[in-house]
Amino acid sequence: MKVEILKNITSANDAIAAQNQQVLDKHNILALNIMASPGAGKTSLILQTINCLKGKLNISVIEGDVASRIDADKIDKEGIPVVQINVGSACSLEAQMITPALDKLPLDKVNLLFIENVGNLICPAEFALGEHRKVVISSIPEGDDKPAKYPLMFTLADVVIINKIDLLPHLEFDLHNFTKTVKGINPKVKIFQVSCNTGQGIDEWCSWISSQIKK
Amino acid sequence: MKVEILKNITSANDAIAAQNQQVLDKHNILALNIMASPGAGKTSLILQTINCLKGKLNISVIEGDVASRIDADKIDKEGIPVVQINVGSACSLEAQMITPALDKLPLDKVNLLFIENVGNLICPAEFALGEHRKVVISSIPEGDDKPAKYPLMFTLADVVIINKIDLLPHLEFDLHNFTKTVKGINPKVKIFQVSCNTGQGIDEWCSWISSQIKK
Repeated sequence: MKVEILKNITSANDAIAAQNQQVLDKHNILALNIMASPGAGKTSLILQTINCLKGKLNISVIEGDVASRIDADKIDKEGIPVVQINVGSACSLEAQMITPALDKLPLDKVNLLFIENVGNLICPAEFALGEHRKVVISSIPEGDDKPAKYPLMFTLADVVIINKIDLLPHLEFDLHNFTKTVKGINPKVKIFQVSCNTGQGIDEWCSWISSQIKK
Repeated sequence: MKVEILKNITSANDAIAAQNQQVLDKHNILALNIMASPGAGKTSLILQTINCLKGKLNISVIEGDVASRIDADKIDKEGIPVVQINVGSACSLEAQMITPALDKLPLDKVNLLFIENVGNLICPAEFALGEHRKVVISSIPEGDDKPAKYPLMFTLADVVIINKIDLLPHLEFDLHNFTKTVKGINPKVKIFQVSCNTGQGIDEWCSWISSQIKK
């Protein structure tokens, strides 16, 4: 019965996600669903991307968190339109939460929308939001075994970003093992190595985003 | 309706958790539910604790993961009885998963049971397993804002362990802000600073465990 309920919930979610995507497509907006463990660097990556694409693209952000406005406040400081969603006892953003958030953004003026999901490697994989690409961040201090331990998230990803690459000399992390595991379960995935601290690899990531933007 | 279903699920879970605790009490076993983000150091802490308490206490471990036996294999190498539970699409261990795992352990010979939960700061807070203490690990690379972002987990904790303290000089982490936020929502919580890499603080943590063991 539990499985049946879950199936009904995700079907209903998928229908709303498809509607959200229609709204985004109508406005020629590329939406990226950013997913990761707590503290892997989701907000830091968005801030670095804003920094490198400001003036070239019009960016907006939807921030998902269990509680607090900490992340939204950081985006707001950059002068970027942002909507904070607090999910309370839920463990992921869901498509129905995105619909009213879209209404609060200046969609006519947006090219690129970041949807920062709740910090969690499990639940967010199960809920489509209407995004065009799923981006998973994994950071060096988390260890190289995460793709084997949370396979669904890494199987569904269009892009995997390895963040905090500047910490590689200080920590045990087998980059070859990580990449091999990810490519084994998801051969088509694109992988970027970045440091949101030093800026390493951010230009390449921003070039990729620019190549995906709808004309 | 969703809330009602959740309430029914957690009540049923709590009843089974109480039964698990009775089994543990009958055998004079102290059970610790270890919870954290992916990669915060749950298995590393258990391995360090095994290292410092081996010969003094009889330890067993239940390992919870979405997939893989990576963590159980590490424990098994130490000659410690271990049961791996793979939760599949669930985002937490639940009490009903612990009951059959207890049957597989040599309970008559155990003083201390670690239950390593799934890597997640949200769902595991909602499911009692039968444990006597809830231990939450937060690591320096995750940032000092996690207690504000995941308040339920830090409110319910009996112990908060700040791991990877050796990385403090290399990363931005406001220890005072972290501690103040945790104590603000949970004044009675006990906080340890450790590094499972260098061994710093592990003795103090092991002394605390010894003080909690049932005679």
